[in-house]
Amino acid sequence: MHDDLRERQRQPLLIVISGPSGVGKDSVLQNMRARDLPFHFVVTATTRPKRPDEVDGIDYFFISQDEFVKMIEQDELLEHAIVYGDNKGIPKQQVRQALASGKDVVMRIDVQGAETIRNICPEALLIFLSTRTEEELVKRLKTRRTETPESLELRLATVRHEMESVEQFDYYVINADNQLDATVDTIQAIIHAELQRTHPRQVVL
Amino acid sequence: MHDDLRERQRQPLLIVISGPSGVGKDSVLQNMRARDLPFHFVVTATTRPKRPDEVDGIDYFFISQDEFVKMIEQDELLEHAIVYGDNKGIPKQQVRQALASGKDVVMRIDVQGAETIRNICPEALLIFLSTRTEEELVKRLKTRRTETPESLELRLATVRHEMESVEQFDYYVINADNQLDATVDTIQAIIHAELQRTHPRQVVL
Repeated sequence: MHDDLRERQRQPLLIVISGPSGVGKDSVLQNMRARDLPFHFVVTATTRPKRPDEVDGIDYFFISQDEFVKMIEQDELLEHAIVYGDNKGIPKQQVRQALASGKDVVMRIDVQGAETIRNICPEALLIFLSTRTEEELVKRLKTRRTETPESLELRLATVRHEMESVEQFDYYVINADNQLDATVDTIQAIIHAELQRTHPRQVVL
Repeated sequence: MHDDLRERQRQPLLIVISGPSGVGKDSVLQNMRARDLPFHFVVTATTRPKRPDEVDGIDYFFISQDEFVKMIEQDELLEHAIVYGDNKGIPKQQVRQALASGKDVVMRIDVQGAETIRNICPEALLIFLSTRTEEELVKRLKTRRTETPESLELRLATVRHEMESVEQFDYYVINADNQLDATVDTIQAIIHAELQRTHPRQVVL
């Protein structure tokens, strides 16, 4: 439009939702998907067992250890890590295709993985999810029947380490108890605001 | 709270709503004030005549030329300018007191004034309001009965000049025709997002 006051350079965003184990990343993603948002939600590949409320191909691609190793060998993963004994990886081609189609891309990933994405793509939009207190996080981890006292101690030690990485994230969002909708409202506000930036992020991947 | 996962350094924001004459700054501010927002809205001093729907002490302090000169002489204005023949100025003490009380401060100001605020306070949050096209802006200026063909030409020349300053603003928000509520929703989203930043703005004034 030649008479626009200013040409907008609309660039798709690469939105990374991260934070400690137990903070509610999966719940946030499920809530976001349930809203009518024009984003591509990355389906992560994982070797961890499917939880009862999860759907293969939507929440995750649940694959075998052998399939996972093959993906690594064929360089099909943008990033991968062993998270508490389970492999997780971000399919590279899926993210590139979504960005190429002009869609904003949303992925959830552990804190170390988010740092890797920051290195691969400095203009990624990094959101750190947190509880307000350590006590809240412990409570959430305990409600997961899978936690033994040993694994709980391990996770908490990891959390304290992960908190040192907060400074490398763009935003720090509290996912308070029973406030999931408010958390996702905040994430939507962040994305909406980012799209009005005078200097849009230049995502190259 | 000693067991917080991260100490938040909540800093009040200095939010500057700017943009060309006719874009709707006053309407945006009136709409924001009508919402239940916990901001301090700066009352600008001006020598321009009161419009019928405006209230002295709320929309502006409507003062005489003599009073305005006295404020300048006593260094009571953070910034002042002659905008199309009328003097406008931001009372310094008012802004400082509001920030000191911990409130986020919202002010509207012309584009040149916003640049001055940027120089005084590099961490101010600057929002540039715009119409989508020049045609929309002309239409709005024409509906103001005050506009003569000469003043319209002058204003448009100024707008073209002001567009060169957009890069110095943080956000560029389109205030489209009949979309005032959406515009203010966007401004609220920006402020909400800014409050979640890992590295909050450090406003020093």
